[in-house]
Amino acid sequence: MIQETLNAALEYARPYIKDGKIADYIPELTKTDPNYLGACVIDVKGNKYVAGDYTQQFTIQSISKTMTFLYALNKLGHKEVFKHVGMEATGDAFNSIIRLEQNNGKPFNPMINAGAIAISALLEHNGVTFEEFLSFVRKICHRDNITINEGVYLSESLTGDRNRALAYIQKACGNIDGDVPSALDFYFRTCSISCNCEDLAYYSSLLANGGKDVITGEQILNPTHVKVVKTIMVTCGLYDGSGGFAMRVGMPGKSGVGGGIIASCEKTLGIAAFSPALDVNGNSCGAYKIMSYMSEKLGLHYFSEIERKI
Amino acid sequence: MIQETLNAALEYARPYIKDGKIADYIPELTKTDPNYLGACVIDVKGNKYVAGDYTQQFTIQSISKTMTFLYALNKLGHKEVFKHVGMEATGDAFNSIIRLEQNNGKPFNPMINAGAIAISALLEHNGVTFEEFLSFVRKICHRDNITINEGVYLSESLTGDRNRALAYIQKACGNIDGDVPSALDFYFRTCSISCNCEDLAYYSSLLANGGKDVITGEQILNPTHVKVVKTIMVTCGLYDGSGGFAMRVGMPGKSGVGGGIIASCEKTLGIAAFSPALDVNGNSCGAYKIMSYMSEKLGLHYFSEIERKI
Amino acid sequence: MIQETLNAALEYARPYIKDGKIADYIPELTKTDPNYLGACVIDVKGNKYVAGDYTQQFTIQSISKTMTFLYALNKLGHKEVFKHVGMEATGDAFNSIIRLEQNNGKPFNPMINAGAIAISALLEHNGVTFEEFLSFVRKICHRDNITINEGVYLSESLTGDRNRALAYIQKACGNIDGDVPSALDFYFRTCSISCNCEDLAYYSSLLANGGKDVITGEQILNPTHVKVVKTIMVTCGLYDGSGGFAMRVGMPGKSGVGGGIIASCEKTLGIAAFSPALDVNGNSCGAYKIMSYMSEKLGLHYFSEIERKI
Amino acid sequence: MIQETLNAALEYARPYIKDGKIADYIPELTKTDPNYLGACVIDVKGNKYVAGDYTQQFTIQSISKTMTFLYALNKLGHKEVFKHVGMEATGDAFNSIIRLEQNNGKPFNPMINAGAIAISALLEHNGVTFEEFLSFVRKICHRDNITINEGVYLSESLTGDRNRALAYIQKACGNIDGDVPSALDFYFRTCSISCNCEDLAYYSSLLANGGKDVITGEQILNPTHVKVVKTIMVTCGLYDGSGGFAMRVGMPGKSGVGGGIIASCEKTLGIAAFSPALDVNGNSCGAYKIMSYMSEKLGLHYFSEIERKI
Repeated sequence: MIQETLNAALEYARPYIKDGKIADYIPELTKTDPNYLGACVIDVKGNKYVAGDYTQQFTIQSISKTMTFLYALNKLGHKEVFKHVGMEATGDAFNSIIRLEQNNGKPFNPMINAGAIAISALLEHNGVTFEEFLSFVRKICHRDNITINEGVYLSESLTGDRNRALAYIQKACGNIDGDVPSALDFYFRTCSISCNCEDLAYYSSLLANGGKDVITGEQILNPTHVKVVKTIMVTCGLYDGSGGFAMRVGMPGKSGVGGGIIASCEKTLGIAAFSPALDVNGNSCGAYKIMSYMSEKLGLHYFSEIERKI
Repeated sequence: MIQETLNAALEYARPYIKDGKIADYIPELTKTDPNYLGACVIDVKGNKYVAGDYTQQFTIQSISKTMTFLYALNKLGHKEVFKHVGMEATGDAFNSIIRLEQNNGKPFNPMINAGAIAISALLEHNGVTFEEFLSFVRKICHRDNITINEGVYLSESLTGDRNRALAYIQKACGNIDGDVPSALDFYFRTCSISCNCEDLAYYSSLLANGGKDVITGEQILNPTHVKVVKTIMVTCGLYDGSGGFAMRVGMPGKSGVGGGIIASCEKTLGIAAFSPALDVNGNSCGAYKIMSYMSEKLGLHYFSEIERKI
Repeated sequence: MIQETLNAALEYARPYIKDGKIADYIPELTKTDPNYLGACVIDVKGNKYVAGDYTQQFTIQSISKTMTFLYALNKLGHKEVFKHVGMEATGDAFNSIIRLEQNNGKPFNPMINAGAIAISALLEHNGVTFEEFLSFVRKICHRDNITINEGVYLSESLTGDRNRALAYIQKACGNIDGDVPSALDFYFRTCSISCNCEDLAYYSSLLANGGKDVITGEQILNPTHVKVVKTIMVTCGLYDGSGGFAMRVGMPGKSGVGGGIIASCEKTLGIAAFSPALDVNGNSCGAYKIMSYMSEKLGLHYFSEIERKI
Repeated sequence: MIQETLNAALEYARPYIKDGKIADYIPELTKTDPNYLGACVIDVKGNKYVAGDYTQQFTIQSISKTMTFLYALNKLGHKEVFKHVGMEATGDAFNSIIRLEQNNGKPFNPMINAGAIAISALLEHNGVTFEEFLSFVRKICHRDNITINEGVYLSESLTGDRNRALAYIQKACGNIDGDVPSALDFYFRTCSISCNCEDLAYYSSLLANGGKDVITGEQILNPTHVKVVKTIMVTCGLYDGSGGFAMRVGMPGKSGVGGGIIASCEKTLGIAAFSPALDVNGNSCGAYKIMSYMSEKLGLHYFSEIERKI
């Protein structure tokens, strides 16, 4: 049932690719093939279902925001983390500076650029190296050779002036304590981590399963932290399209401008989908459609009006 | 178990009443006793649990926004309704005008004043009388003699200049078609509907149960509309505190400045709590604490890390 | 010299009419002929120079803001008036609501809609009738049969929802004390006053001459009030184009969406020009060009780098 | 008459010092004595009048914005300069980021931090060295050994994160072309130039005199550029208090958070005053009061209702 639905979801989604366009604010991202379309589902029993270009690697971009946030919760604790970021939605464009200034430099939540930069700064200032963080990513994605895409990293770094501005406002307001260029370097690297749908479906299944590895049963993540990140993903995971995704998909999700979207159906399964062309909100057109199709057909919405078919 | 937890929740919540203050923007609201504290739980099997001042009536205020929205979905359809309101969170104060102007007069969602005024205007312009709407409220709350508090209605009407401004901007931008004073009169009446915790717990249980009456089994509301309203309640139900409520309570909820809060645990139960003193976001301090206690102890959060104990 | 320059100014300005378009937010305004172009200069010795359609009447619209402001200063005093409006520029669109809300309902200055509505409300609340104000306008424009354009007044009133919003926010914030509909009615009437270039050139010469009638020598206006209004006209007189007008024309000026612009060269002369087509800032293209030509050729800029040639 | 009035102005102004406080956003600035009070007037005939601590040096801070702007106009021309900054007032706090973002990275005018940073970037990117600019400052202030205050420069540089943010937004939006750190270094140096009242009164007299040296008669500045800078000083010279200064003083002026204010009475005289304690808008309390006293007593307002007494 899941495999067939997944296959059908890709067919359903494919025509929508042409409605989007590849992110062009980072030159390196424009080099990808816009027609990639892939997805992977891993359920909490460890079953895996794949379709399309599920082995194609792409940079996870903002999907990393959920990972740095989890890592910071684990390393520094709930209280310290929420001194530097809030937990409210913004209703604003994902890189807006306006709301940051009105809020005295404290980003509304860790899923927007400003918030993730604050988290990166916090980690970096507390002595976390990028290598340590990368090890964590490898563990939660279940692949030992995950690394960053150097070309994208350089491109991010060269063109990241808006992110620099977001960091310096926070520095000026006292929300960032350490060195800004180092914090930004950490941030740019997290965005440039290169994964495929399988890696991210594994991670999504971990979130769906309360932080417990769906294969080994090991409790990898603190279940309360998993609850916290999923809760924020619901309200803030898809930039200015978060409300629409909640309506049409109804799973905690997170998108990245690299074309990936992840979503977790509570105690059921994790999905990751990938397609590079983005809608006006910066969310992958193809991946979004795969998600909405899967949710509708299988009853994955947290308030689904139909029975869950799995 | 539920009854004992509910009793304990009230004891837990009572000391927090003094942290809040009664809404004073409507003079009539200040006349209530700040020490009221009550709650009612109705589960999807129809069992009822009560505590404290659960029979005390209060005006439902913004809780009515969920009801006008449901009524409009039913009467006019999803498409027409979402022409006039969005489905995204705002991150702004509940009566802010700024975001409205930036969005060309279309309110971000139906849970903020501007959005609920748009819905009231839509109903009124389509020939719905307030009496018809009141009949609907009586049905979903399961009490035939629900009526409005005339004193509060007059007070709302006399002091509603900010709401008038919100309406006229929308009229100027073409988001409201009909007569503004009539639309506002409809809106002020919906805010002034007087209920008690039992009424609202019944309504919450209906939402938890996908629109099916928990006693008679009758399908009173369209299940898709119930999904839609609960989804928006998650992201926008508690004004600027929606993200915090999602974190600490994790149920679709809605508060009103009259002191009420409702919440629905999917396929499990509905709760309504009441206490007039409000926090800085306009949410009842006492009712909020009852909700968070119940959620934590019974595992009612949609992503709860503990097993649901019911 | 003045007459020749004025004739040349009209020839210079005429081709620019086609760059603008007639205000369409008030339906009645669209009925005028876009090709009207006229001007009148009256110097402080009482000499009059005319050109083009200088006898054509048009509604003065926002030019009236300078008159209600002067009238309120005279009637209620500097202190009372500046309790309700500020004296700072906004840099915002002339009917913006955003800045109003951020400033707790007190408009930044009396030259924007919100500010002029506050002034109208203040006058109306203090018992000033529109007839009394109209008598004042007749006196400062030196024509006894000035009246309002009833068609435009009705049109303003029917379509003035944004102005209603601006008024109700101020009412909600306590910046307007009296009845909002009455205040708005007063305001809509002031905008609909019908003048020609001769009337307004007379008024401009009065401002240039410190409030003293250029023919009779009578001190009609308090010289300090004249200083105050001219000072505000410099920074706020041409909506979002005030800085550009200061640069290119360099006289205290005021424009109206009816197509009129007035300007006063200190102790020298007053000009009024008229042409209905407006630029993106809502200022008459033709009248603006007449002003800039006159200023440049005659050295009328307050910081002119050439000698004044009159 | 001028000397007596100047003496009286200082006595009038002295008690207001205690209403202000020294700028503390740059640590180095807090080291000054808050009780300094001095002024200097130089008329267009070259007569000089001094009072109080007129030889005390202080950093000119934002007063330098008028100088970089003049230098850029001269070096690069009107057209190129106004590609990068506007000429409209903002009505916003002097270092606000909000308006910058809404305006696609182009600052509203060259008198706010963002605008002056754009000008510094433009100069630096066009190969102008700070030494060249400093030579220009020495010339227009008529003192050969003007230099920067190294302590303040370092302090500015260390704490200038908000200015870094303002620069990076402009870089991100394409309004700044060159290297951001170099542009900021240039900017921080301009702010740290150390002058006394005599230096700045000389500069102000030069502006009052259309760019012609009041002693030698040499045409040092292009008269059109002088007109341009004075015009912008009127609307934007005193941060959010520009409208109030226009009302009470009525001369093109510019203040700096170092405690200085300059003003120029057209074809008459230049004044510079200094006192470190600032009002809420960042303008020197003491210097402001000296200005308003001088203006009122001598009729220096451009629309003065009394005769000019000089």
